[in-house]
Amino acid sequence: MRGDVPKRVRVGVNGYGTIGKRVADAVAKQPDMELIGVAKTRPNFEAERAIAKGYPLYVTGGGDRSAFERAGLPLAGTIEQLLAEVDVIVDASPDKVGRENAARYRSAGVRAVFQGGEKSDVADASFTAMANYRVGQGKRSLRVVSCNTTGLARAASVIDRAWGVERWDATIVRRGADPAETNKGPINGILPTLQMPSHHGPDVRTVLEGLPITTLAVVVPTTLMHVHVNRVRLRHPPADAAEVIHRLRTSPRFRVFRSWEHVDGTPQVMEFGRDRGLGFNDVMENVLWEAGIGLDGPELHFFQGIHQESVVVPENIDAIRSMFSLAADAAESMRVTDEALGLVPPAARPTSMK
Amino acid sequence: MRGDVPKRVRVGVNGYGTIGKRVADAVAKQPDMELIGVAKTRPNFEAERAIAKGYPLYVTGGGDRSAFERAGLPLAGTIEQLLAEVDVIVDASPDKVGRENAARYRSAGVRAVFQGGEKSDVADASFTAMANYRVGQGKRSLRVVSCNTTGLARAASVIDRAWGVERWDATIVRRGADPAETNKGPINGILPTLQMPSHHGPDVRTVLEGLPITTLAVVVPTTLMHVHVNRVRLRHPPADAAEVIHRLRTSPRFRVFRSWEHVDGTPQVMEFGRDRGLGFNDVMENVLWEAGIGLDGPELHFFQGIHQESVVVPENIDAIRSMFSLAADAAESMRVTDEALGLVPPAARPTSMK
Amino acid sequence: MRGDVPKRVRVGVNGYGTIGKRVADAVAKQPDMELIGVAKTRPNFEAERAIAKGYPLYVTGGGDRSAFERAGLPLAGTIEQLLAEVDVIVDASPDKVGRENAARYRSAGVRAVFQGGEKSDVADASFTAMANYRVGQGKRSLRVVSCNTTGLARAASVIDRAWGVERWDATIVRRGADPAETNKGPINGILPTLQMPSHHGPDVRTVLEGLPITTLAVVVPTTLMHVHVNRVRLRHPPADAAEVIHRLRTSPRFRVFRSWEHVDGTPQVMEFGRDRGLGFNDVMENVLWEAGIGLDGPELHFFQGIHQESVVVPENIDAIRSMFSLAADAAESMRVTDEALGLVPPAARPTSMK
Amino acid sequence: MRGDVPKRVRVGVNGYGTIGKRVADAVAKQPDMELIGVAKTRPNFEAERAIAKGYPLYVTGGGDRSAFERAGLPLAGTIEQLLAEVDVIVDASPDKVGRENAARYRSAGVRAVFQGGEKSDVADASFTAMANYRVGQGKRSLRVVSCNTTGLARAASVIDRAWGVERWDATIVRRGADPAETNKGPINGILPTLQMPSHHGPDVRTVLEGLPITTLAVVVPTTLMHVHVNRVRLRHPPADAAEVIHRLRTSPRFRVFRSWEHVDGTPQVMEFGRDRGLGFNDVMENVLWEAGIGLDGPELHFFQGIHQESVVVPENIDAIRSMFSLAADAAESMRVTDEALGLVPPAARPTSMK
Repeated sequence: MRGDVPKRVRVGVNGYGTIGKRVADAVAKQPDMELIGVAKTRPNFEAERAIAKGYPLYVTGGGDRSAFERAGLPLAGTIEQLLAEVDVIVDASPDKVGRENAARYRSAGVRAVFQGGEKSDVADASFTAMANYRVGQGKRSLRVVSCNTTGLARAASVIDRAWGVERWDATIVRRGADPAETNKGPINGILPTLQMPSHHGPDVRTVLEGLPITTLAVVVPTTLMHVHVNRVRLRHPPADAAEVIHRLRTSPRFRVFRSWEHVDGTPQVMEFGRDRGLGFNDVMENVLWEAGIGLDGPELHFFQGIHQESVVVPENIDAIRSMFSLAADAAESMRVTDEALGLVPPAARPTSMK
Repeated sequence: MRGDVPKRVRVGVNGYGTIGKRVADAVAKQPDMELIGVAKTRPNFEAERAIAKGYPLYVTGGGDRSAFERAGLPLAGTIEQLLAEVDVIVDASPDKVGRENAARYRSAGVRAVFQGGEKSDVADASFTAMANYRVGQGKRSLRVVSCNTTGLARAASVIDRAWGVERWDATIVRRGADPAETNKGPINGILPTLQMPSHHGPDVRTVLEGLPITTLAVVVPTTLMHVHVNRVRLRHPPADAAEVIHRLRTSPRFRVFRSWEHVDGTPQVMEFGRDRGLGFNDVMENVLWEAGIGLDGPELHFFQGIHQESVVVPENIDAIRSMFSLAADAAESMRVTDEALGLVPPAARPTSMK
Repeated sequence: MRGDVPKRVRVGVNGYGTIGKRVADAVAKQPDMELIGVAKTRPNFEAERAIAKGYPLYVTGGGDRSAFERAGLPLAGTIEQLLAEVDVIVDASPDKVGRENAARYRSAGVRAVFQGGEKSDVADASFTAMANYRVGQGKRSLRVVSCNTTGLARAASVIDRAWGVERWDATIVRRGADPAETNKGPINGILPTLQMPSHHGPDVRTVLEGLPITTLAVVVPTTLMHVHVNRVRLRHPPADAAEVIHRLRTSPRFRVFRSWEHVDGTPQVMEFGRDRGLGFNDVMENVLWEAGIGLDGPELHFFQGIHQESVVVPENIDAIRSMFSLAADAAESMRVTDEALGLVPPAARPTSMK
Repeated sequence: MRGDVPKRVRVGVNGYGTIGKRVADAVAKQPDMELIGVAKTRPNFEAERAIAKGYPLYVTGGGDRSAFERAGLPLAGTIEQLLAEVDVIVDASPDKVGRENAARYRSAGVRAVFQGGEKSDVADASFTAMANYRVGQGKRSLRVVSCNTTGLARAASVIDRAWGVERWDATIVRRGADPAETNKGPINGILPTLQMPSHHGPDVRTVLEGLPITTLAVVVPTTLMHVHVNRVRLRHPPADAAEVIHRLRTSPRFRVFRSWEHVDGTPQVMEFGRDRGLGFNDVMENVLWEAGIGLDGPELHFFQGIHQESVVVPENIDAIRSMFSLAADAAESMRVTDEALGLVPPAARPTSMK
């Protein structure tokens, strides 16, 4: 660290694709952070956007400076120059590339936030705001767990605190590709993930130690969202599903749809996102359906949708805040983050049912 | 019934679409059955096929005789005339239409086999060969349960007998439409079935009374197969997963793929079906993957693929044999059915692993 | 000519789905229009949005008032009450319903704008701003042609004026459903539209009389955009494709992507829309690719993408302006509309190539 | 001219995937050919099928013999040993690998048939039976053009001979991946092929010299078939579309669906293939629709479906026959091929309309 904690933490983003561009926007909206610049390997329409937004653009990943010049996109410098200007770098590189970058960040003396596509030992600790916000204190690097893991960790945090989780079984129905990843399939078919259990369960335990969760996964031909099918045995079950609905509805980063809203599945959730109009029309919350939450004695069943592109965005912000002690606790950090991002605080949400 | 049991049961098929054409072919291949005719509402390429196969074609469902004539497709008569010629009718009408037909079959004095798209009270009993073959004795009508239910009932029959099922949780990842149902979606997205639990669990219990099974379902954009993600707690678990693999591999109507076969998901299963070359390139077995069968203490995890178009076809045949007492027991009936359909008997299958 | 015409035209929108909600937002942004209210049949998440945006909400289409009340969504009244308050109603009802509404609008004495899902005789004239802006003068109703027709009419307007169209052949590769229309297919397959030529050609001629255009269409399993494959024989061809690119790039409502932007297809166009961040992340322009514009003597070949949800939105605005003589000509109307909507005017666009 | 040419040409197939397994089956069915063996790189379910069919299996492409042994699949030898036993090898390797193999075939002194994924200079000539059957005489190698090119060349052969082609414009709507290629996309979206014109036109001219054809292409999210949208200006047009329909219907390797057959698109064509029950349920013919053939003066418009997996299979057989002078002419070769494959000869087809 560089002496006193700065009034506003200076943040760089290395990688400006699906995650990087969202994190950059999110940083730029925070009252206690300053976006110093973003780094990209090659020019494309996303690089144009960075310039249009006024984000200083740096070349990274062995990219060719002249390619940017030919495209008429002014560069502010190289990733090394960006690192010299920031307190912390958010690494939003493609999977496995973050690991290669880690040494560079260390030698530049900047803290780092990595994404869940890296193995957990890339950083000093793994992080999900609702699960283990305080873990960031004194750390030089954090890893925000993947979208599916973040979604599970959020839900498990709320449910375990409220009623105790005796056992959690989740089936993860994964989207095959992101919307613009046109080179990935499958076009027609279901692919079971023949790793049993899937890696998601152990990954949840990197932020919620000891959670008795087992996960299995399949991949399906959609680009919009993942869906989790959850079966949870509770130690101290609530009286009815309505209590679960109320608890989730009044927790940050959850959106529970009512039946009359006619949100039948992930396409309507994304349409809701377009209607709401946050940046990129993202849906950063865990999405649930009232009619998709059932309680059978101690057994809680529920579906949740996870928008793979955006669900980790607020977590990246909180991870920075945790490392730099910018908030008193998780609740404060999430409140600041979510307000800046335009998410409606739980207290302002409708609580009526059906 | 019409006096002595006939040497060969005379069978008609009402409805000649996805299920009807398969059942017709299957009946025509059985040594103890005779296909008297098939009935269809309107001419199309499937009706042409019936004529090409030499199946007498009858008009049903208020269809227009002259439409067949204009198409040059000779009709053998009406559904009433077909009913007068058969001992049993297999109803392969669209969902809910079977119920409307039931009275007609009764008044014609013919026995009937219905499909799982009808509610269970359409018939005297519900049926899956491996689960409750003997239920057909003395019955005037049976209902073959749906494809998903058949797949679950088969697996549960084998596993419960071997090791005792204490609890069975299944997530059913359903195909959105059959291959030629071009008017059905979704094109992109996942739709949770907001009925909790889904109807499949109770439906399994119509053939396996008391089975402690709970099911949840989602619909995804594929036309090929369903996939079940199963978690089963066993009363008397086997030593290892290899024992489970062996048991399933030596049971009729199961196909367990080995890793080196490189069958990654349902598209490759269907490709296997095309390579094998049974009628319509069907895969009538429950499909499993060695690497997709895991045992963790008493917890058995496994994926299974279910080909929605064909998995119930052998069950329709066995249902007829059960009602007419054409076989000593389930094993004999299934052996005769499967040999006629070209399914490899378990004894002839490779048992080596990996 | 703004005598007794109101300073700001009072506009209502009947139907608040895909088109209606976009038109409502667009009206609300115009300096010379006022959004009086929107009408909807039943409550859902879109109705919630109307309330959240502060749009007075009316019940229409035989909808049930109490359903809105139960949902906690305050109604401002019925469609009849809305009609009493407005100068013009934009009908964004489902296809064919607009026709049923037409008499109601006439008897209420309000002008009307219909959508292209209605037959052309629903209104006094059909309309596309670039093609026949002046047609609205003195008319009581206009019909904005469909998305595909609008896209063709825009391109034909520019190209015919510049170089003369001797013959235009277009293949329209249509999206199967809108993103949230989960009940529509196909999931896997291509459906030729067995109407030859397709209706799009004659429909273009409702706004560009006599244009020698012939269209054929297929439907494919995507929700994002249509793509037109165009072959145009020019009377007075330009020197090279660069001239075509320049002309289109400097015309309103066209976006021509350069190769280095790496916009490979419609998924990347939609991603560009998310990056740009207009309402709903819409792409209201005809989308072209520099590398997808070729000139071979007098033969011009080009692809264009058409975002079915939004491309007609600015046209609805211009249609109102045309009927109420709010602008001197098409260019002025389009400039006002597009500035209000946030579309970059051609003069401000980059013109460098590759 | 069958002097020292063997009575039955001894054929090997190098590569046993989508094309190779089909060609192997087709060779095995021909009266004048003998399938000596097939070669594969690694064991999988397709290799099992080769063994089950009794095809001697050889290892190729640097594959590991021991992998086959571990899988229990007996090898007959290496590709070199297969080459020593055959008169001709059909190369069904992945794209671009055939070129690497060509020298090996030459030095082994065997003739070779390559696929259309190779550039045309891989072989002495390119080949489509209906277009240029005689080109094979005296050649040591032929290249069967790709599926799309074959389909266009067939149609152009018939139409050009009958009425003269003055100009042919085709839009090729391409499938994104084969059914089991689960790693390829796009899942949702349309990708214009930004090569203008596409390579298909020049490729057609490798078998139909001088044909004035121009092609443009898009890729869409389906696995079943390609669809061509054709616009042809005829020199000597027929009286009406019925004449075109008749001509195509009485040509080998065309299937023209009538309206009452209710074959709406490629999913129903594939369902027709399953109903018909040729190997793999293939549809080796160009598929057309009566209602999708229109004549407007000299302009012929028609859609055709092309099953990418199988349409070149009979062409591979004819290519062998051409090189070895096993038939008097194209008509005889095609008749022998098609009879062996189970395709209905034109004379036996229904000719009634609608």
